[in-house]
Amino acid sequence: MLKMTYNQILEYFENNQQNRLKEKINLLHSADSAQIINELPSEYQFTAFSLLNDENASDVLPDLYDELREDILEKMQQNRLVKIIDEMETDEAADIIGELEDDVSKELLEKIDKEDSEDIKQLLKYDEESAGGLMQTEIIAANQEMKRDEIIEYIRENYEEVENIHYIFVVDNDNKLIGLLEVTHLLLAKPQRKAKDIMDKNVISAQVDLDQEQVAHIFRKYDIYILPVVDKEHHLLGRITVDDIIDVIDEEASEDVYKMVGLESEDRVFTSPLSSVKKRLPWLTLNLFTALLVSSVVGIFEQTIARLSFLAVLMPIVAGLGGNSGTQTLTVITRGIALGELTIHNTFRAIIKEITVGIVNGILIGSAAVLIAYLLKGNIMLGVVLGTAMICNMFIAGLVGSLIPIIMKSLKIDPALASSVIITMLTDIGGFASFLGLATILL
Amino acid sequence: MLKMTYNQILEYFENNQQNRLKEKINLLHSADSAQIINELPSEYQFTAFSLLNDENASDVLPDLYDELREDILEKMQQNRLVKIIDEMETDEAADIIGELEDDVSKELLEKIDKEDSEDIKQLLKYDEESAGGLMQTEIIAANQEMKRDEIIEYIRENYEEVENIHYIFVVDNDNKLIGLLEVTHLLLAKPQRKAKDIMDKNVISAQVDLDQEQVAHIFRKYDIYILPVVDKEHHLLGRITVDDIIDVIDEEASEDVYKMVGLESEDRVFTSPLSSVKKRLPWLTLNLFTALLVSSVVGIFEQTIARLSFLAVLMPIVAGLGGNSGTQTLTVITRGIALGELTIHNTFRAIIKEITVGIVNGILIGSAAVLIAYLLKGNIMLGVVLGTAMICNMFIAGLVGSLIPIIMKSLKIDPALASSVIITMLTDIGGFASFLGLATILL
Repeated sequence: MLKMTYNQILEYFENNQQNRLKEKINLLHSADSAQIINELPSEYQFTAFSLLNDENASDVLPDLYDELREDILEKMQQNRLVKIIDEMETDEAADIIGELEDDVSKELLEKIDKEDSEDIKQLLKYDEESAGGLMQTEIIAANQEMKRDEIIEYIRENYEEVENIHYIFVVDNDNKLIGLLEVTHLLLAKPQRKAKDIMDKNVISAQVDLDQEQVAHIFRKYDIYILPVVDKEHHLLGRITVDDIIDVIDEEASEDVYKMVGLESEDRVFTSPLSSVKKRLPWLTLNLFTALLVSSVVGIFEQTIARLSFLAVLMPIVAGLGGNSGTQTLTVITRGIALGELTIHNTFRAIIKEITVGIVNGILIGSAAVLIAYLLKGNIMLGVVLGTAMICNMFIAGLVGSLIPIIMKSLKIDPALASSVIITMLTDIGGFASFLGLATILL
Repeated sequence: MLKMTYNQILEYFENNQQNRLKEKINLLHSADSAQIINELPSEYQFTAFSLLNDENASDVLPDLYDELREDILEKMQQNRLVKIIDEMETDEAADIIGELEDDVSKELLEKIDKEDSEDIKQLLKYDEESAGGLMQTEIIAANQEMKRDEIIEYIRENYEEVENIHYIFVVDNDNKLIGLLEVTHLLLAKPQRKAKDIMDKNVISAQVDLDQEQVAHIFRKYDIYILPVVDKEHHLLGRITVDDIIDVIDEEASEDVYKMVGLESEDRVFTSPLSSVKKRLPWLTLNLFTALLVSSVVGIFEQTIARLSFLAVLMPIVAGLGGNSGTQTLTVITRGIALGELTIHNTFRAIIKEITVGIVNGILIGSAAVLIAYLLKGNIMLGVVLGTAMICNMFIAGLVGSLIPIIMKSLKIDPALASSVIITMLTDIGGFASFLGLATILL
């Protein structure tokens, strides 16, 4: 269905039907408009965006691809941007303003709505990847002494400004968070009941400096939709909504996979080729050095290879299986850390398990390899060398694949950075050295 | 803080203080109890679970690790299980019952609450990974003619049974979904207003057979918390809540990484070693065959290696960099497909981009390698062979890393299955063949 809309919009562009275009694009759900603008040929993108009314533009802007948004922000008139920012919620406004040049953002902050401007300045001080960086200041907070009907009046006055209310936060006279009140519960309560009597006191909250990954864990674990954010003294500052957490979870999941293969998170399908080259080059350079290291280990055995050239034919088998086995272990462990399954109590068990799996698989796959080597070359000793090297290397794979991310985690380095390049370097070295070393001694 | 609770509970166990244990574990948030039980030494796990009252047990059971839950379900008395299931929401009850043996689940379905039993039987018919498999039948649906105050009465009567209401679904006389009504909006509406006059008509819904990955896309794209599920004729069947979608997103993200390295999604940190060995063995066996294939390509050039043994020392460099570069491309493309960024309009552009990045990086890294080879061996021709082979192989990496997952996607095979083992096989073959082939001709 969206494909049809896309084609129609493209047709309007080609036939220069601006009025129809404007009508059509403003009737769509903003998420659909954003998707279409993201996919339009680049010469139409800015025009399409400028045809949106301010409210739609404020919903579409955060959903555009980063490079496109940057481009549009550069071309846009300032008074238009002021209007768009005024329509946004504070968390999104802060994200957009945070992307601008310092002088541009300063000017902008003076022109937008005063109250919002203060809130946004405050939000910009928090780390982008913390609870403070995710929260919005649009909340409905009721004093504990407020009666049901007073709260309803208060909601009525602020209804336009706060989307997805669902929960009222209850605070004491110091603005400290003391409870949560579901709107449905409020709907069913008697008119004279006070907030403190009908609220839920077991309210889960996040401190403003909590890392976004931890914030996502809270949502994941407690199955909540909205999370209040407080400072150290438990004063209520804002709230985080679950839709923003889904973005965080997507981002963190991408990041974890990306880091494992040495990619930066901004390196997406449609990042410009030049920018992707730049982003990938440092890691490939590192990879060149690890490869040279591996190569120098092979070099130690050059005389053996000169004598027995079939070793060079077989050696990729040992290294390849070790590398893949190590990457499997690495993936299980980093994913376990990311999802919070691996904790301090059970680390040792996890390492032992991965080593066991490595050795057992090494024995099984190694035996198959022994058989194959024997059938191919008729050399039982060669089979023994190959099989033993495989068992050694799968043991190494289990050990380094689990130990390295766990050590990094305990050193507070992101375990996903224990990327496949390090693990495969170690299993390559382990594989070549054990295979060629054993061959030098035994053959 | 949870660590302290964990230690206390462990202490109660060791001192055999059952009463304190029971009190403590029932006071915790069910998500915390579940985490603690998951991490307890295995001899205490069943006892800890049996100390939970029925309501807490019904919240904890779905959050236990799969193998532990299986174990507990096997040991549990049937009448206890009936009570626990009766406390559950239908979607979770269906998940649990779906895990049981056929005869056990049949018996159970006869003993639990009649109405729930009918709903659960219906839910069990849907594919586990579809909208139907995710939805619950506990909903508040109001006829379009109902007045505000009637709806409130209706909510009051069903409040206990439906958690996280937040939205009322509005249906016509045929039970077809025609609108959505936010509880906050209902709270502010006048007593005599009818549902059809205050509802939002632009309601987003999912068909019952929609795949869960697509369902997650709807939540992600439209930033919603609750999604109604309908049949082909748009009759309202149930709803999906965002907390279940977070689980789906986690699951799909794990699955994508896992498939890329040939892991099954049930292979977690604490899956038993034997079970992990079994799960990983088929893929490692496949890997043994791809490694043999690679080895046989190297075998073609055995004479060249016998003559120039230093080629065996350098050849892992070409293969290694190609493999890592190909895995990077594979990751960018599969992640782009998973997040819906890669669509039919832009496939070709994506492939061209990845090939370009591969060639450019090949030229840059290749030049560095040429220089290094020259410095090490003083042989300019060897440098040319190494550099050219690298450019070839990085081109191959960009091509196969993008083309293979895209082809698989268009054949409706999961692109994440284009696992690293296939890509590294191709880049290994490409690397060894181009390097040794060029060397045979030129050196």
